Amino acid sequence: MSASLAIGDLAKRLDAEVVGDASVQIEGAAPLESAGPSELSFLARRKYLRYLSQTRAAAVIVARDLGRLGDVPEGTALLWVDDAHLALAKALALLYPEESRPPEIAPTAVVAPGAELGAGVSIGPYAIIESRVQLADAVRVGALTLVGEGSAVGRGSELKDNVTLYPGTIIGERCVVHSGVRLGVDGYGYVYGKAGHRKVPQVGRCVIEDDVEIGANTTIDRGSVGETRVGAGTKIDNLVHIAHNVKVGRNCLIVAQVGISGSATVGDGVALAGQVGIIGHLKIGDGAQVAAQSGVSNDIPAGEIWFGYPARPRTQVMRASAALLKLPKLMRRVRQIESEIGLKET
Amino acid sequence: MSASLAIGDLAKRLDAEVVGDASVQIEGAAPLESAGPSELSFLARRKYLRYLSQTRAAAVIVARDLGRLGDVPEGTALLWVDDAHLALAKALALLYPEESRPPEIAPTAVVAPGAELGAGVSIGPYAIIESRVQLADAVRVGALTLVGEGSAVGRGSELKDNVTLYPGTIIGERCVVHSGVRLGVDGYGYVYGKAGHRKVPQVGRCVIEDDVEIGANTTIDRGSVGETRVGAGTKIDNLVHIAHNVKVGRNCLIVAQVGISGSATVGDGVALAGQVGIIGHLKIGDGAQVAAQSGVSNDIPAGEIWFGYPARPRTQVMRASAALLKLPKLMRRVRQIESEIGLKET
Amino acid sequence: MSASLAIGDLAKRLDAEVVGDASVQIEGAAPLESAGPSELSFLARRKYLRYLSQTRAAAVIVARDLGRLGDVPEGTALLWVDDAHLALAKALALLYPEESRPPEIAPTAVVAPGAELGAGVSIGPYAIIESRVQLADAVRVGALTLVGEGSAVGRGSELKDNVTLYPGTIIGERCVVHSGVRLGVDGYGYVYGKAGHRKVPQVGRCVIEDDVEIGANTTIDRGSVGETRVGAGTKIDNLVHIAHNVKVGRNCLIVAQVGISGSATVGDGVALAGQVGIIGHLKIGDGAQVAAQSGVSNDIPAGEIWFGYPARPRTQVMRASAALLKLPKLMRRVRQIESEIGLKET
Repeated sequence: MSASLAIGDLAKRLDAEVVGDASVQIEGAAPLESAGPSELSFLARRKYLRYLSQTRAAAVIVARDLGRLGDVPEGTALLWVDDAHLALAKALALLYPEESRPPEIAPTAVVAPGAELGAGVSIGPYAIIESRVQLADAVRVGALTLVGEGSAVGRGSELKDNVTLYPGTIIGERCVVHSGVRLGVDGYGYVYGKAGHRKVPQVGRCVIEDDVEIGANTTIDRGSVGETRVGAGTKIDNLVHIAHNVKVGRNCLIVAQVGISGSATVGDGVALAGQVGIIGHLKIGDGAQVAAQSGVSNDIPAGEIWFGYPARPRTQVMRASAALLKLPKLMRRVRQIESEIGLKET
Repeated sequence: MSASLAIGDLAKRLDAEVVGDASVQIEGAAPLESAGPSELSFLARRKYLRYLSQTRAAAVIVARDLGRLGDVPEGTALLWVDDAHLALAKALALLYPEESRPPEIAPTAVVAPGAELGAGVSIGPYAIIESRVQLADAVRVGALTLVGEGSAVGRGSELKDNVTLYPGTIIGERCVVHSGVRLGVDGYGYVYGKAGHRKVPQVGRCVIEDDVEIGANTTIDRGSVGETRVGAGTKIDNLVHIAHNVKVGRNCLIVAQVGISGSATVGDGVALAGQVGIIGHLKIGDGAQVAAQSGVSNDIPAGEIWFGYPARPRTQVMRASAALLKLPKLMRRVRQIESEIGLKET
Repeated sequence: MSASLAIGDLAKRLDAEVVGDASVQIEGAAPLESAGPSELSFLARRKYLRYLSQTRAAAVIVARDLGRLGDVPEGTALLWVDDAHLALAKALALLYPEESRPPEIAPTAVVAPGAELGAGVSIGPYAIIESRVQLADAVRVGALTLVGEGSAVGRGSELKDNVTLYPGTIIGERCVVHSGVRLGVDGYGYVYGKAGHRKVPQVGRCVIEDDVEIGANTTIDRGSVGETRVGAGTKIDNLVHIAHNVKVGRNCLIVAQVGISGSATVGDGVALAGQVGIIGHLKIGDGAQVAAQSGVSNDIPAGEIWFGYPARPRTQVMRASAALLKLPKLMRRVRQIESEIGLKET
C-alpha cells in the first residue's frame, strides 16, 4: 500500500523547487514511460530524456545539473533537486512506508528451549531457532529459515525466508539478509594429497556487523580458525561468494556474483563491480575500485581504480588497449619499411 | 517410469527412416556407450561416432547430415532423421511421459485465508501461500516454497521445492521455476555517501511472462520503481543474476552464471552464453549472440555476434587476436630492420 | 565445545618437535593476532611472520621450511612440523571433536511410507523424505531439506539444511552436501527454434560418488539421457554450476563459482580455480590445472597448467603478455626507423 501526498508537501520534504501545479496528490511512483496522472517519476540521466516529453506523470524529480530539458507535458510538474537519486530514495520512503506488522511468532516455528528472544521478535512459519540462539528486540525471521545453534542476531535485523545461518553466526543490528543466503558455511579447506584431500576442520565463525545488507543466494563462509568478517554498512548483492577468513571493511559495495577468496582483506569504502574475482591472501586498500569482471591477482593500493584480467591500474590498461588496437597498422608500417630498405619479410 | 514402444511406431512418430528390425520394443533411452538392448540412443555429433560401433542400443537416432557412419552393430537399428535433437526431444517425451499425479494440497501447506486457488492446484508439504496470492488452474507449488503476498502464478506453471517468491511477483502460464530460485528480490539500489549508503526503497515488481523456465538458484530482482520483466519463451539456466529494471525479450537463451546489471534491455531471441556479464543501462539488440564469459560494456546492435573482455564484434576480436600472436615475430623483424640500417635498439 | 590437551600430548599426536613449555594446556585454536594464552595458533607463510613476535598464543605450529623466525614471545611454545597444514588439520580435529549427537528423527519430518531408513539415521524438522528413498546407516538429513522420490544416500553422508535432491539422485558414502545445494536439476536442454524453444525432457540422473563435499548453493544437473557424475573424493566449493552429462573425475578441486558446461569430461585430480568456465563437450586431462577466471574453449592435455581468456598453456600466455607490455616501446622504435630512413608514418 502506498501513501498519498500533495506535490507541494513532497517538495518541502525533498528540498525541491516545484515548477507546475503543487496541489496535485501523488499516490505512487513509476518510470517516466508508464507513470499515470497520480504518480511520481524521476529523470536522472539525459539518456532517458526522450521519455519526458510524453510522460503522463503528475510530477518528475529532475537533477539540477541535467540542464535544458526540452518539452515537458502540461500536466507534469517538475521537482528540481540537487541529487535526484537521494530525492527519489526519500520520496519512495514517504510514498511506500514500511508496514509495521505486529510481531508474531508462527505456531509452527520451532524455537529451542534455550533460545533467548527479545521484545517484538517475529518468526515465520516453519522457521527453526536452535538452542542457545539470541534474537535481539524487533528481529524478524522469515518462514522456512534456520538459525543455527548459538547464533546471535542484533536489534532490528531481518532474515528473509529460506535463509540458513550455520551454528555460531553473529549478525549485527539493522541488517537485511535476503532469501537463500547461507552464512557461516564451512570454508573450502583441505590438505591436498594424491591419495585424497583431507578436510581441515572449519572451527571459526562468521561475523556480520551493523547495517549490512546481503543479497539473495549469497554465501559467506565461517573462518577456518578465527573469523570471516563483513564491516558495518557494507552492501552485498546477489550470488556473491566470500570465502573463509576474508575481512571486508566498512561501507563497501560488492556487486552481484563477485568472488573473494580465502584470507583476502578488503579495506573500507571499496567498490567491487559485478563478477570481479579476488585471489586469496590479497589486500585491497581503502577506497579502491575494481571494474566489472576484473580478475585481481595483486594487492591494490588505497584509492586506485583497477580493471582487466589480470587487473591492473586503469591508466596502464588504457595504454595497453590503445596500443593493441594500433597493432594491425603497426604491422603494415613494418612491412612498408622492409620493402623500402629491400628487406624480405622472414 | 518409462513407456514401451516398438521401433517402428517410434519411427512413425518421429518421421524417421528405419534401417534395421522395426519390431523391437524400446523401453527407455541411454547414451551410446551405456544403452542396453531395449534402449534408444542417439548420435548428433561425429565426435561421438566411435561409440556407435560398440553400442548395444536397440536403436539409434542419427542425423541425416552426419554422412557415412562406418560399422553399426547387427542388433542396432538406425533411425535417420533431419534434426536429431528434435527427434530425441520427441522420443523422450513419448518414452518418459510426465506422470499426471492427482492434484493434492498437503495438510501441512499454509494457505492464507485471502488466497485464491484455481482448479487442480497442488501444494507441497510445508509450502506457504500468503494472503492475496492467486494460483491459477493446475498450478503446482513444491514443498518448502513460499509464495509472497499478492503474487500471482498463471495456469499450469510449476514452482519446484525451496523456491521463494517475494511479494507481488507475477508469473505467466506454463512456466517452470526450479529449486532455490528467488524472484522479486530487492534490487541493489543505494544512494552512496561517505558516511554510509542509504537504501533506495525497491517498490517495483518482477514479471515473468508465459513459457519461461528458470534454473536452480537463479535470482531475479523486482523493479526499483516499475518492473523487471522476462519475456515469453525465454529460458534461463542455473545461478543467473538479473538485476532490477532489466527487460529481457522473448525466446532468449540465458546460460548459467550470466549476470545482467540494472536497467539493461535485452531484445528478443538473444543468446547469452555462460558467465557473460552485462553492464547496467545497455541495450542488446534482437538476435544478438554473446560468447561465454564476455564482458559487455557497450550496446550491441541487433543480430551481431560479440565476444571478449571487453566484448567487441567477433571479426574485430579475431583480427586483434591474430595480430597478438604475430607480435613476437614482429619484434624480431623490427630488430632486423634496425640492424640492417645500423640503428641501435634503444 | 573444544577439548583440552597438553602441548606435549598434542606434539606427540602431530609428530612435532616442541621448543618451549610442553605442559601448558591448549583449549582451542585462533589466528596469531587474536590467540589467547590457552590457544594454539599456526604459521604457514612468511607473509604472516610479523604477527609471531606479538602473539599471545600458548603454542604455534610452524613449518620446518619457513627458516629463521626472529623473535618469539617467551610464553609461546613452537611446534615444528614438516607440513603445517596437515598438522593444523589434525590438531583441529583433536581440539574440536565432532559432537556425536544421538540420532533423532524430528516429529515434523515427513517420511513417505515407502522410504527405507538405515540404522542411526537423523532427520531434521520439516525435512521431507519422498517415496522409494533409501537412506543408509548413519545418514543425517538437515532441517527443511527435501530428498526427492527414489533418491539414495550412502552410509554416513550428511545433507545440511535447506538442500534439495531432485528425484533419483544418488549420493555415495561420507559425503557432505551444504545448505542450498540443488542436485539432479533438469539440465538446460532445448531444441531451438525461431518460434520458440522446445524442452528436451531431462530423464537422466545425478550421481555423486563417495567422500565428495559440495559447497553451499551449488547446482548440479541430472543427465539429459544418462548420467551427470562427480567422482570420489572430489571437493566442490560454493556457487559452482555443473551442467548435464558432465563427468568429473576423482579427487578434483573445483573452487567457487566455477561453471562446467554440458557433456564436458574432467579427469582425475584436476584443479579448477575460482570462476573458471569450461565450454561444453571439452575434455580436461588428468591432473590439469586451470587458473582463476580462465575461459576454457579447448581440450586441455593431462598435467598441463592453463590460464587466460581464452585459456592457453601457461608458457604461451606468459610470452604473449610479455610481448604486449613491450608494445608501446616497439611503436617508438618503428617511428624512429621511419624517421631514420625518411619514411612518413602513414
